[in-house]
Amino acid sequence: MAAPRAQAKLEAFTYDPGSLGDEQVEIEVQYCGICHSDLSMLNNEWQITQFPFVPGHEAIGTVTAAGRSAKLVSPGQTVGLGWNAGSCMACPPCLSGDHNMCRNLEQTIVGRHGAFASRVRCHWSWATPIPQGLDAAVAGPLLCGGITVFNPLVQHNVRPTDRVGVIGIGGLGHLALQFLNKWGCDVTAFTSSAGKAAEARQMGAHHVVDTHSAEELAKVAGSFNFILSTVAASLDWSQYLNALAPKGHLHVVGVVPAPIAIGAFPLIAGQRSVGGSPSGAPGTVATMLEFCARHGIRPVTEEFPMSRANEAMAHLEAGKARYRIVLKNDL
Amino acid sequence: MAAPRAQAKLEAFTYDPGSLGDEQVEIEVQYCGICHSDLSMLNNEWQITQFPFVPGHEAIGTVTAAGRSAKLVSPGQTVGLGWNAGSCMACPPCLSGDHNMCRNLEQTIVGRHGAFASRVRCHWSWATPIPQGLDAAVAGPLLCGGITVFNPLVQHNVRPTDRVGVIGIGGLGHLALQFLNKWGCDVTAFTSSAGKAAEARQMGAHHVVDTHSAEELAKVAGSFNFILSTVAASLDWSQYLNALAPKGHLHVVGVVPAPIAIGAFPLIAGQRSVGGSPSGAPGTVATMLEFCARHGIRPVTEEFPMSRANEAMAHLEAGKARYRIVLKNDL
Repeated sequence: MAAPRAQAKLEAFTYDPGSLGDEQVEIEVQYCGICHSDLSMLNNEWQITQFPFVPGHEAIGTVTAAGRSAKLVSPGQTVGLGWNAGSCMACPPCLSGDHNMCRNLEQTIVGRHGAFASRVRCHWSWATPIPQGLDAAVAGPLLCGGITVFNPLVQHNVRPTDRVGVIGIGGLGHLALQFLNKWGCDVTAFTSSAGKAAEARQMGAHHVVDTHSAEELAKVAGSFNFILSTVAASLDWSQYLNALAPKGHLHVVGVVPAPIAIGAFPLIAGQRSVGGSPSGAPGTVATMLEFCARHGIRPVTEEFPMSRANEAMAHLEAGKARYRIVLKNDL
Repeated sequence: MAAPRAQAKLEAFTYDPGSLGDEQVEIEVQYCGICHSDLSMLNNEWQITQFPFVPGHEAIGTVTAAGRSAKLVSPGQTVGLGWNAGSCMACPPCLSGDHNMCRNLEQTIVGRHGAFASRVRCHWSWATPIPQGLDAAVAGPLLCGGITVFNPLVQHNVRPTDRVGVIGIGGLGHLALQFLNKWGCDVTAFTSSAGKAAEARQMGAHHVVDTHSAEELAKVAGSFNFILSTVAASLDWSQYLNALAPKGHLHVVGVVPAPIAIGAFPLIAGQRSVGGSPSGAPGTVATMLEFCARHGIRPVTEEFPMSRANEAMAHLEAGKARYRIVLKNDL
């Protein structure tokens, strides 16, 4: 399923991927989640999309072929593929376990074709085996949405004794709440949708703060060790900096369009910091999947057949997804 | 020496501090460094100054009296006093070793009188013994300027294998260069004053980057694990974010007037972060002084008699201090 140009409908498309690389594997796609970045790429919002464009970077499928130098995975195995599809394994970030920041990173839907397709290829390191106990039909969203919010907890050494806030209860946020609850933290959901409060609690939030209420925000001032922002909109950042405890960290994973304005004084006085992070490395993806299997964490999904991907994309664009859409392959 | 009102000259002033608190000590001031924040407070830039205002928060002196519950220091001992003069010892930050972020913090020149004076008082925890081998005549600037740039290295776990940049070679920066050199790091000085390059190298910089040269800045893109900004001016922050390696941290200790504008994309793509920190806790101050004594680190100072504090302040305000002024008490 490819878009011939920006903002166009997806239509049937066939391409020849050539011979399989020695370090590559080929995956028969069974399911593919839809991420907001599929939409951003389809609309060429970041000016890096090549057309025809095949979206899809939350794939679950079966390995059908493996190059002669492929490791860890073999034909017949069920694997997941996310935002990244190839790392050089040899640059300093790769050698440090940060393959997601590889200097020669290959991204699944940037300059190549994604997983709204019968088959998709990747470097063996990015085909992560799906552990027993994880339902393949809903696991796709973990491979991009999930790892994007799981990785910051690992990178920033979030501790079970921490008080943590999650801004935005959507595709990413609803997974962050589940992770953090099982991580042992005291979990607060920040949401502007009052209607999501009950569901946020079901997903693991111990507290819900209405971001429209200055009073509720004032009550939590100075209390969070870590706040994870999953939204792609510009917020009143000073409000969230103010909600951080001394040494607290505000972490952004949504690509906010405007620069984030941070006052030097709240940073300095409270030894606070602001950061961001991209996806996660293969080792962290595997750890996350194991954590999900152990704790029964699963994305809340709506399923569409892949042949109706246009409908599914429109549903996402309308802000109606609760909380992540998965396409079941019927191509 | 007190200013009767904002921007006024300092003049002789006498006050009765009352009886000494049980947990306090009294210090006979021998030397006091001048920090840029003495000037900011004198000019009431932060709208928190109370007049008459006695500046001075980089004091070195002899303990002359100690309250009945004072610990660790006793009369006759030479101690240093910096920005902070009292912590409650009982709030969560104090109990975690972060006395510099005490919820009931007493600051030496905020709402009380500082050390441009014959005597000054503080809670015993903030009177740090000066170790053997440190020259009392130049040690004062370590107590505020020094700890402000030493503490981030401790808090952010800067490693001897890191590549570190220091923005601004002044009262703080010239100490940061010395610390980082002895810390084992690869040290770069960022300066807009070409005339300071040779001195920056003497102080420990292995490299000097002229911040007016786009070419020199482009050459170091993506290379720093840690950049410490000691300037109180707004910079082109994107330039310095761009200079950070993956996982790099930009740390601000100068109170920059305008909000710091940070693009979400460079934060996310490179897992970068931006933070700040205030001074340091007593344990870190003691560690720093020991580190200075071991490595022969000493502030580069110019000495004025305290009775000529107005001249000294004018010298600082004119940007002429190389690199820190110390007043010798002749009151």
